[in-house]
Amino acid sequence: MDRRSFLRTSTFGGAAAAASTLAAPAVAQGRTTWRMVTTWPRNFPGLGVGAQRLADRITAASDGQLTVEVFSAGEMVPALQSLDAVIDGTAEMSHGAAYYWQNKSVALSFFTGVPFGLTAAEHSAWMRFLGGQEMWDEVYDQFGVQGFLSGNTGTQTGGWFRNELTSLADLQGLRFRTPGLGGQVWQRLGASVTNMAGGEIFQALQSGTLDAAEFVGPYNDLALGFYQVCKHYYTSSFVEPGLATELVVDKAKFMELPSNLQAIVRDACQAEYENVYSDFVANDPRALATIVNDHGVTAHASFPDDILEAGARESKAMIQELLASSDDLTARTARSFVDALKLMRTRTEGTDQVFTTARQRFFDTSDL
Amino acid sequence: MDRRSFLRTSTFGGAAAAASTLAAPAVAQGRTTWRMVTTWPRNFPGLGVGAQRLADRITAASDGQLTVEVFSAGEMVPALQSLDAVIDGTAEMSHGAAYYWQNKSVALSFFTGVPFGLTAAEHSAWMRFLGGQEMWDEVYDQFGVQGFLSGNTGTQTGGWFRNELTSLADLQGLRFRTPGLGGQVWQRLGASVTNMAGGEIFQALQSGTLDAAEFVGPYNDLALGFYQVCKHYYTSSFVEPGLATELVVDKAKFMELPSNLQAIVRDACQAEYENVYSDFVANDPRALATIVNDHGVTAHASFPDDILEAGARESKAMIQELLASSDDLTARTARSFVDALKLMRTRTEGTDQVFTTARQRFFDTSDL
Repeated sequence: MDRRSFLRTSTFGGAAAAASTLAAPAVAQGRTTWRMVTTWPRNFPGLGVGAQRLADRITAASDGQLTVEVFSAGEMVPALQSLDAVIDGTAEMSHGAAYYWQNKSVALSFFTGVPFGLTAAEHSAWMRFLGGQEMWDEVYDQFGVQGFLSGNTGTQTGGWFRNELTSLADLQGLRFRTPGLGGQVWQRLGASVTNMAGGEIFQALQSGTLDAAEFVGPYNDLALGFYQVCKHYYTSSFVEPGLATELVVDKAKFMELPSNLQAIVRDACQAEYENVYSDFVANDPRALATIVNDHGVTAHASFPDDILEAGARESKAMIQELLASSDDLTARTARSFVDALKLMRTRTEGTDQVFTTARQRFFDTSDL
Repeated sequence: MDRRSFLRTSTFGGAAAAASTLAAPAVAQGRTTWRMVTTWPRNFPGLGVGAQRLADRITAASDGQLTVEVFSAGEMVPALQSLDAVIDGTAEMSHGAAYYWQNKSVALSFFTGVPFGLTAAEHSAWMRFLGGQEMWDEVYDQFGVQGFLSGNTGTQTGGWFRNELTSLADLQGLRFRTPGLGGQVWQRLGASVTNMAGGEIFQALQSGTLDAAEFVGPYNDLALGFYQVCKHYYTSSFVEPGLATELVVDKAKFMELPSNLQAIVRDACQAEYENVYSDFVANDPRALATIVNDHGVTAHASFPDDILEAGARESKAMIQELLASSDDLTARTARSFVDALKLMRTRTEGTDQVFTTARQRFFDTSDL
């Protein structure tokens, strides 16, 4: 990291000198083009579209002073090399999900989402008002990058299953595609968990290599055709209560930007966090209606109770392990996350959920 | 409106001429100061603070090209004259809530929130992806202004009551401070509903003029001291599932701005929508803990079932009246809102709520 540290120090120094000696208009008239690599296919609903919209927002709000050019997965680097591309200077920005980089730091899982963890609204509140961003900064400072929230899918669906699940026993040996910490929970419940790229899932289901698969939600899943093989769709995941996406920026280059361009990047990311989530809230139900009505799939709102109960037990055990991690930063991140959850769930479960439950029980809109 | 129409037309013409003949830097170097009047006291938690943050975002992102100066309620005009101040040109921006202007158009209620209606996440999704903004534009075009979402409180609390509510019968003649369409629902349920400014509520409770009062939620309510009189706090409102705030801008002046400044205003508003909501999600539970632990208040998650059932019936009757409104714009707005609710509740109740319910039932964090 020595060379990078040196470069970072010297560019900081350069920026300070520029700020003190150059008139503002000269800085403002500079035109910079930044490359944003992403982990998503081009036009991927919600997420790939959101990355492009974010780039366009920054370009528009800065009147092209900071023009952002998007490279979808594989166009400049493979999806899972996006963060490295920023670290090594191949690109200035990466749009993806922090939990893809768990091999660099397990703490990064918490900035995307964890089993039985924070919802989309809680996640943002943790990051902005309860110390989450400060923990994230501490993790990413190690790599010379800065993370900003850039989107959220909301609660994802639980997955596509060839056969209906009647109890925990049905999971034993079930060949299930589901990645990340969620996959580890399913593995602990007895499933035989594998991971593979989104584009390979359908073939594996059709050939019988997989019995079940989990991807995102109706808006993304519909296009991949899983409904042709699996007729049981569980519409609520307990391992992915929300999946936050990130924009990662080379921190030294970011700090060199004039403060108004820094503000533009920050505001655009926060606006897109809200926009991506809204996109899923509006478009998931349309896709689900198509899946159920046009393709004869049965939607199950909930997994059987014994699966939820065992899933909660195993998720808790996993979080306890992270709280007790020998890596200090992971342990402190887990503590910050858990404390935020303990606090905010009182509002989510005591106010928001009480309302939606009452609406569901008493407010019939079918004849409106 | 003739003079205004004339001015608007002529300034449009001026802007078009400028865009075609002046070099971009000359436009960019212009410095404009806009006045934002608000309906909130200065530093009012969540909402007043959010108005100031929004102004600061626009000023920072534009490097002062569009500097926004905030005037809290009463500093330039009284709170409830904020929209008129923009219409008559006294100010360029107003930060408030659309339902304050129901006297101009009943349709405006829908852009803040209605009984048993949309949650914060659903509201934004309706506005951005399901036609809500287009309806709003149609309403506000009549007044020469443009509305942008600028914040949301999330689901509010149900109110403070001197005595516990055991059934619908307890509402008969209950002197209850609760405004807007929600107040109309409580009135239909038998309460004697009055409205008064936030600052007058405590005195009315203490003197016995009121039996109960509803304001916002713990974050705002704590400072007003209601807990000194009312020991029963109902933590989930069925009449205010979300309260969206707005930034209203003089449309002609907005259209004259260079497109990058328009983008900055839009992004800042959307970022603040998310930020204000996060602020409530993070800070309401801290305030509620103080209310319960330090002030001996009993928090009730839910109203009795017969109140919820009757509340749903009366809310529905009210929405049916709005759907059948003789004012075409109100009827079409109600239709757009209801269709969005019918669609999105399938996700909220079939995915998000299923998750939080499972978390509540199975995922105990008290020992973490």
